[in-house]
Amino acid sequence: MIQNNYSQTINKNEISGVNIYTFITNAHYKNRKDLLLIVFDDVYSYASLYTKSSCPSIPVDWCKNNLNKDKIKAILVNSGNANAFTGERGKKDLIEILGKLSIKLGCKLNEIAVASTGVIGEFLNTRPIIEALLDNEMMKRSTWHDAANSIMTTDTYPKIYFKQSNIDGQNVKIVGIAKGSGMIEPNMGTMLSFIFTDANVSKTILNKLLKEVTNNSFNSITVDGETSTSDSIFLVSTNKAKHKKLLDLSSPLLNDFRNDIEELAINLAKQIVIDGEGATKLVEIFVTGAVSKSSATKIAKSVANSPLVKTALYGEDPNWGRIIAAIGKSYEKVNLEKLNLFFGGHQITKNGRNIEDYDESIVKDYMKNDNLLVTINLGMGNYSHKVWTCDLSHKYIDINTDYRS
Amino acid sequence: MIQNNYSQTINKNEISGVNIYTFITNAHYKNRKDLLLIVFDDVYSYASLYTKSSCPSIPVDWCKNNLNKDKIKAILVNSGNANAFTGERGKKDLIEILGKLSIKLGCKLNEIAVASTGVIGEFLNTRPIIEALLDNEMMKRSTWHDAANSIMTTDTYPKIYFKQSNIDGQNVKIVGIAKGSGMIEPNMGTMLSFIFTDANVSKTILNKLLKEVTNNSFNSITVDGETSTSDSIFLVSTNKAKHKKLLDLSSPLLNDFRNDIEELAINLAKQIVIDGEGATKLVEIFVTGAVSKSSATKIAKSVANSPLVKTALYGEDPNWGRIIAAIGKSYEKVNLEKLNLFFGGHQITKNGRNIEDYDESIVKDYMKNDNLLVTINLGMGNYSHKVWTCDLSHKYIDINTDYRS
Repeated sequence: MIQNNYSQTINKNEISGVNIYTFITNAHYKNRKDLLLIVFDDVYSYASLYTKSSCPSIPVDWCKNNLNKDKIKAILVNSGNANAFTGERGKKDLIEILGKLSIKLGCKLNEIAVASTGVIGEFLNTRPIIEALLDNEMMKRSTWHDAANSIMTTDTYPKIYFKQSNIDGQNVKIVGIAKGSGMIEPNMGTMLSFIFTDANVSKTILNKLLKEVTNNSFNSITVDGETSTSDSIFLVSTNKAKHKKLLDLSSPLLNDFRNDIEELAINLAKQIVIDGEGATKLVEIFVTGAVSKSSATKIAKSVANSPLVKTALYGEDPNWGRIIAAIGKSYEKVNLEKLNLFFGGHQITKNGRNIEDYDESIVKDYMKNDNLLVTINLGMGNYSHKVWTCDLSHKYIDINTDYRS
Repeated sequence: MIQNNYSQTINKNEISGVNIYTFITNAHYKNRKDLLLIVFDDVYSYASLYTKSSCPSIPVDWCKNNLNKDKIKAILVNSGNANAFTGERGKKDLIEILGKLSIKLGCKLNEIAVASTGVIGEFLNTRPIIEALLDNEMMKRSTWHDAANSIMTTDTYPKIYFKQSNIDGQNVKIVGIAKGSGMIEPNMGTMLSFIFTDANVSKTILNKLLKEVTNNSFNSITVDGETSTSDSIFLVSTNKAKHKKLLDLSSPLLNDFRNDIEELAINLAKQIVIDGEGATKLVEIFVTGAVSKSSATKIAKSVANSPLVKTALYGEDPNWGRIIAAIGKSYEKVNLEKLNLFFGGHQITKNGRNIEDYDESIVKDYMKNDNLLVTINLGMGNYSHKVWTCDLSHKYIDINTDYRS
């Protein structure tokens, strides 16, 4: 277990206008929170990104095609069942739930965003979900901690982050929750993440910002190179902060906010890797000196997804030859003579070979840390990219052999 | 351990003009065969393919740039050290060995093909290799079995196949050897494979045939999605068979020979997967009904490389949802309504969902076999592709955590 210095406990509802409800429905899991409903005081602006999987789940498909493009009133998330590859019946099940809920909330059906996570290919158990949503007794205010808990599957802890930011001298709040542990190499968001803010910014800013931030956070992590059918990320703003409304992402007044929201997203993304199935180490792969951003990203991902690199990390073996091989299988342009490789502060290669006075025993000690940095300086250009990954351990095999998640 | 019905024991030198020598040099391994020298009676035509890795080994780099394009006199292979990422000294070491050997064989330096396999980033121990090659006492004729043995690294058995073929009514022989167990998703050949024939065919035929056959065999297997720095494949012909010389691959006289050489290559490729690090199952992923060959290949590889699919196979769990997710992360076009999935003869999905009377207990029994077939009929077009993979077990982690290979 890697020490988690990233998660925060937030028991207050930090964003005015955002109301959290969680439920134990027993629909798929037994006796654990498995349903999250977030209801807004009004319809709010949002931005969203979904998996690029060519086999998306029913909720992803529905949000992409049916959700109101401008504003939403609520978000509904169930865990334990992904409602993926369930065909016409899966769609019918979803519409039934949304129909009942929209009447209760007094909003349109297409103003409720949805996400599901869990087993693929089984039908939703709709009745206990609907019963819970309609039962006023069960409808009690919950905390962000409850919210993050209710969307977990194989996750071992809830992932939350809160950031006090500012725009134009006024306080702005950002809260994010996320879930994910296996089937993680998102190509858009993580399994699921929901970020809320009161920043008074346009929908255009939300859209652009979410893309920008996601590329450097959720799209830059990997546990097992698997992209899920259900990955979704939402950024919602209540627009209630006191600064004047901003319309353009290029405004310098947004500098702090941009940094803070990226910090929050990277933090949540790292929490997912720390909780990666069977992970014992959080490893940052930093590729620099690349000829393009895309080349840096490809090389970083090739190393981060290499099972031979990941097993060596698990064995705390500074087996740098495997990193060279993984760089090679990216098929990106490389000049071996210029490639400099480092574990932490320890230089390993120079001029196309192991450095002269290489002392492996020192590097072996470094590998015992549970937070590791691998720097690959290609010495060819000015672009760089960071990717976070974990090691590949026996526990990953155990979790995925013995348990149908 | 999967039962290996593929390997043959051939103790005779089946191809006249091809002379095998193997050595125990103790250069890197101790007390096991670690050096193979194949010397031809004359210079012979050959075709070769090498890794597309952007960090190729010194021998691959040398063969690509320096080896005589038409004919070769010998092939030299050492195991235990890949001579990869060894810079100028690695090149100097190789030239020194080839210089001494070419004088002994009375050929040009650039008529000796070379390959190395083993640890990356360490310098060759040249002295025992040169001593062995120059010592006439050690120069004793060996068998194909010895040859296949001497190129093994983490392999647990030698990979050999022999095929009696015919062209234009005349007998033609084909013998191939290969090695490979981990770092296997070749992008051209396997780790190493050498195929010999006496077919009297042009160099053009050898080149085209090797490409064609490699795409359906060595380029269609994966153990761990890793492409090595050292992958190389050679096809050499003595041209001694008695049929008239053929110049064009489209000749119908070549039909049997083409099939036979493909059968041999697929056989060797499957032997590598069976001996995949930690493998307990050989799994054929057959994608059919695709809109293009490239789409079929991408989908098959996406499934074959999915750690979640591979751990489910190890657990003998017919967790078909993970196959759907893996198809999705190929990002290839898919129509879920048309996708039909089968384990062996058992249909799993139809019309975008689980089939009506699906009985998982029967399929669970099927999963206990150590040879499995997963058929994915996309129902969209007329193209198909087969890929062979293995499961992902605890032993893969053990091998790659505890042992620097």
